[in-house]
Amino acid sequence: MSVFILLNCKTYDEGTGINAITLAEACRDVAESSGVEIAIAPQIPDIFRVASVVDVPVYSQHIDGAGPGSHTGHVYVKSIKEAGAVGSLINHSECRMTLADIEAAAAALKANNMTSVICTNNVAATAAAAALGPEYVAIEPPELIGSGIPVSKADPGVVTDSVDAAKRINPNVKVLCGAGISKGEDLKAAIELGSQGVLLASGIVKAKDPKAALYDLVSLI
Amino acid sequence: MSVFILLNCKTYDEGTGINAITLAEACRDVAESSGVEIAIAPQIPDIFRVASVVDVPVYSQHIDGAGPGSHTGHVYVKSIKEAGAVGSLINHSECRMTLADIEAAAAALKANNMTSVICTNNVAATAAAAALGPEYVAIEPPELIGSGIPVSKADPGVVTDSVDAAKRINPNVKVLCGAGISKGEDLKAAIELGSQGVLLASGIVKAKDPKAALYDLVSLI
Amino acid sequence: MSVFILLNCKTYDEGTGINAITLAEACRDVAESSGVEIAIAPQIPDIFRVASVVDVPVYSQHIDGAGPGSHTGHVYVKSIKEAGAVGSLINHSECRMTLADIEAAAAALKANNMTSVICTNNVAATAAAAALGPEYVAIEPPELIGSGIPVSKADPGVVTDSVDAAKRINPNVKVLCGAGISKGEDLKAAIELGSQGVLLASGIVKAKDPKAALYDLVSLI
Amino acid sequence: MSVFILLNCKTYDEGTGINAITLAEACRDVAESSGVEIAIAPQIPDIFRVASVVDVPVYSQHIDGAGPGSHTGHVYVKSIKEAGAVGSLINHSECRMTLADIEAAAAALKANNMTSVICTNNVAATAAAAALGPEYVAIEPPELIGSGIPVSKADPGVVTDSVDAAKRINPNVKVLCGAGISKGEDLKAAIELGSQGVLLASGIVKAKDPKAALYDLVSLI
Repeated sequence: MSVFILLNCKTYDEGTGINAITLAEACRDVAESSGVEIAIAPQIPDIFRVASVVDVPVYSQHIDGAGPGSHTGHVYVKSIKEAGAVGSLINHSECRMTLADIEAAAAALKANNMTSVICTNNVAATAAAAALGPEYVAIEPPELIGSGIPVSKADPGVVTDSVDAAKRINPNVKVLCGAGISKGEDLKAAIELGSQGVLLASGIVKAKDPKAALYDLVSLI
Repeated sequence: MSVFILLNCKTYDEGTGINAITLAEACRDVAESSGVEIAIAPQIPDIFRVASVVDVPVYSQHIDGAGPGSHTGHVYVKSIKEAGAVGSLINHSECRMTLADIEAAAAALKANNMTSVICTNNVAATAAAAALGPEYVAIEPPELIGSGIPVSKADPGVVTDSVDAAKRINPNVKVLCGAGISKGEDLKAAIELGSQGVLLASGIVKAKDPKAALYDLVSLI
Repeated sequence: MSVFILLNCKTYDEGTGINAITLAEACRDVAESSGVEIAIAPQIPDIFRVASVVDVPVYSQHIDGAGPGSHTGHVYVKSIKEAGAVGSLINHSECRMTLADIEAAAAALKANNMTSVICTNNVAATAAAAALGPEYVAIEPPELIGSGIPVSKADPGVVTDSVDAAKRINPNVKVLCGAGISKGEDLKAAIELGSQGVLLASGIVKAKDPKAALYDLVSLI
Repeated sequence: MSVFILLNCKTYDEGTGINAITLAEACRDVAESSGVEIAIAPQIPDIFRVASVVDVPVYSQHIDGAGPGSHTGHVYVKSIKEAGAVGSLINHSECRMTLADIEAAAAALKANNMTSVICTNNVAATAAAAALGPEYVAIEPPELIGSGIPVSKADPGVVTDSVDAAKRINPNVKVLCGAGISKGEDLKAAIELGSQGVLLASGIVKAKDPKAALYDLVSLI
C-alpha cells in the first residue's frame, strides 16, 4: 500500500511565500529518498511559485464550488489548475464549507482530473464525505488539531471507524488522518490503524528543521 | 406507504405570526379528513404559538448544531423542542449549512427523538445526506424552487436517482422532493417517482385559499 | 442619564424555555424596584412565550436582514415583532454578520420602530456601527466574553475610546459595554467610563440566584 | 484630481491564468498612454504571475482578516504582499464579509502599507465603511452589477450620496463607483458625480477587444 503525506502550510509565516518554496524542496527531497509520496499545500497565492520551481505535487488549501463567472474572490478550479495545483483540500476545519459547496468543489476537481481531499471532523461526517466519491477523506478531530497529541494515540477509534465507514460507503475512498501528527511513530500508528497516510501542518512547518522532521516522519515505514 | 407533506412558511408575510396559525389549522383539517400526514414549518419565533394552539406536527425551518452554552442567536435543539417542535429542516437551500453543522444538527435531533429533514440540491448531495441517517432527505433542485414548475415534471430523473442513491446508502432514509410543487398531480407524480412526499411552500402559502390548495394537493392519492 | 441593562440568555440551559420566563421575571422585579431599565434577550423560539407572560422588554438575540419572501430559516423582523420583541441584538460575536446584513437588519428594525443593539469587537468597528445610526452599540472585546474579568477593569480604554468614537460619528448613538460583567462594581465602572449600560449573560444566567445577582448588579447606581 | 480604475477579473475564464496577464498588459499600456491610474485584480492564484511579469498595480480580489497561524485556506496579507499585490478589494458583493473581518482586513492592509478598497451596497454601508478609514470605498448597487446599465445613469443619487456620506465621516476616504460601467461616458459621468473612479469587470474582461475597451473607457477624461 502506498502511503500519502500532505503537508499543510496554513497561514504560518514559516510557510508563506519564499518559505513555502523551502518547505516544498524538503518535501521533494524526502519523497525522493524515501519513496513515500509527499505533497504540499501552500497558501493559494503561493501555488504558482511553488509549482513553477519545485518538482512536488502541489495542493490548494481550499477551493470554492463556483465555476467561471461573477464570483469575485472565489477560488476557481481552473485558476488553481493553471497555477500548477494537482488537487485541493476541501472543507478543512479552519475553512468549513456547506455540503452543496463541498459537492460542487469535489465535482469540479474530478472534472479536471484533480485530486480531492475532503476533511471531516467525525465518523458520521466521514461517511457523508465518502458518499461524494473523493480520492481521500481526511479525518481530523478538531480538538486535537495543533495540540501536539497525535490522533492515532489520543483517539485511535475515530481512525479505524472512519476507515470502516468510508469503506462501507465507497471502497475506493482512501482515508487520511490528521491532528497532532508529527513523528515517525505517529505515521506508523496511523498506517496500522488502516489509514493511507496523514495530513499534517505545525509539527513540520514550525519545526526547527522541517526536512529533518520529515525524515523522522517517514523513518518507520 | 404513508405520504408526508411538509409545508414551509419561509418568511412570507402570509405565513408570519397569526397567519401561520391559520395555515396550521388548514394543515390539521386537511390531514384529518384525508388521512395524509401534513406538518408545518413556521418561522422560528412562531413555533411556540403554533404548537400551543393547533394540533399539528410543527417543524423548525432551521436548527444549528450548537449545544448549550455561549451561542448567541443560534437555534438550539432544546429550545425548539420545548417550544413544541417535533423536528426540523436542516440545510435548506436558503439557509445552507456546513457539513459539520448538518451532522451535528441531525445528531442533536436524533438524541432528542426529533425528526430530521435534510435538504439537498442534487443526487450526490442526497447520497451524502443519507449517510448521516436522517429520517428524510428532501431533494430540491435550486433552480426550480419558487418557479412554479414542479420538479416531478421538470426533472423526474433527479427524484428517482435521489431515491436510488439514498436507498443504496441507507435503506431507512426516506426521500421527499420539492421545488415547484403545488397541485395534486405534482404530488401524485412525486409519489410515483418513488418519493415519500413533498416539501412545499409558496404554492400553498401564497395561494388565494390555502386550505383549498391543500385539499387539491391530496386529492389524487 | 438612564442606565440600560440587557440580559442575554444565549443557549444556556439555564435560560432556555421555562427558565427564560423565570429570568424574565427576575429582570422585571429588579427593574421595578430599582428603576433601572432591564431587558432580556431569550432564545428566538422563546420570545413569544416570554413576551406573552412577563411585562419586560424582550429583545431577539439575532435578526437577519432578509425581508418577506423565500428566506427559509431567517429571522424576519415582522416575525419577532409579532412575537413581542421590541428590539434585537445585531452582530453578536457568536453570530457575526456581514456589513450588508447588519445595515439591512438595523434598517428593518428602525422601519418597525424597534431598537437596534449592534455588537462590535473593537473601537474601529464601533465607529463603523455608529455610522449606521442604531440606538446602541455594544462593545465586547471577544477575548473577555465569558472570562469573568470585566471589560471595565481589564480594558477601560476600549470603553472610553468606543464612547468617543461613537460620539464623533453620531452623537445620538449610545454605547453599552459587555464581556465579563456581573457585579455592581462592574456596572458602576462601566457607567463612569461613559457607557450607558451593559450587555451581560453568564454572570447572571448561570448565577446560583439570578435575581440576587441582578440586585447586586444595580446596587451601586 | 487623479482618476483610478480598478479592473476586477472575477472568475471569468477570459481573466484566468494566462488571460489575466494579457489583460494586465492592456491595463499597463492604456495607463501609460493615457496617464490614468489603472490597476488589475486577478484571481488570487494569479497574483504572483501577473505581478512578476507585468508592470501594473496588482490587487487581490479578497483578503481575510486572519493573521499568521492556523487559518487553512484563508487569504493572509503577507502572502498576497509577497506575491506582489499592492492592495485588495474587501467585502465585494460576491464575497461578503463580516464587519469584524472587514475591519481586521483593512487594518492588516494598512499595517503593511497596502491599499484598501472596501465595497459597499448602499449609502449607509458606505458611511460605515468610511469610518474604518480605507483609501477607497467602492459603492456598487448589487442589482446593477453585470447588468450593463451603468450606475452613473441608473442611480446617480447613490453615487453623490455615497460621496457625501464618506466625506462627512472621513474626508480622506475616496469613493469609487461600480456596476454596469464599461464606456467612456460612464466613467466621465462617474467622475462628474464626485467619485474618484470606477471598479469594473465584465464590460472590459468580456469585451471582444479589452484593450480597445479600456481606451474607450478613458477617452473622455
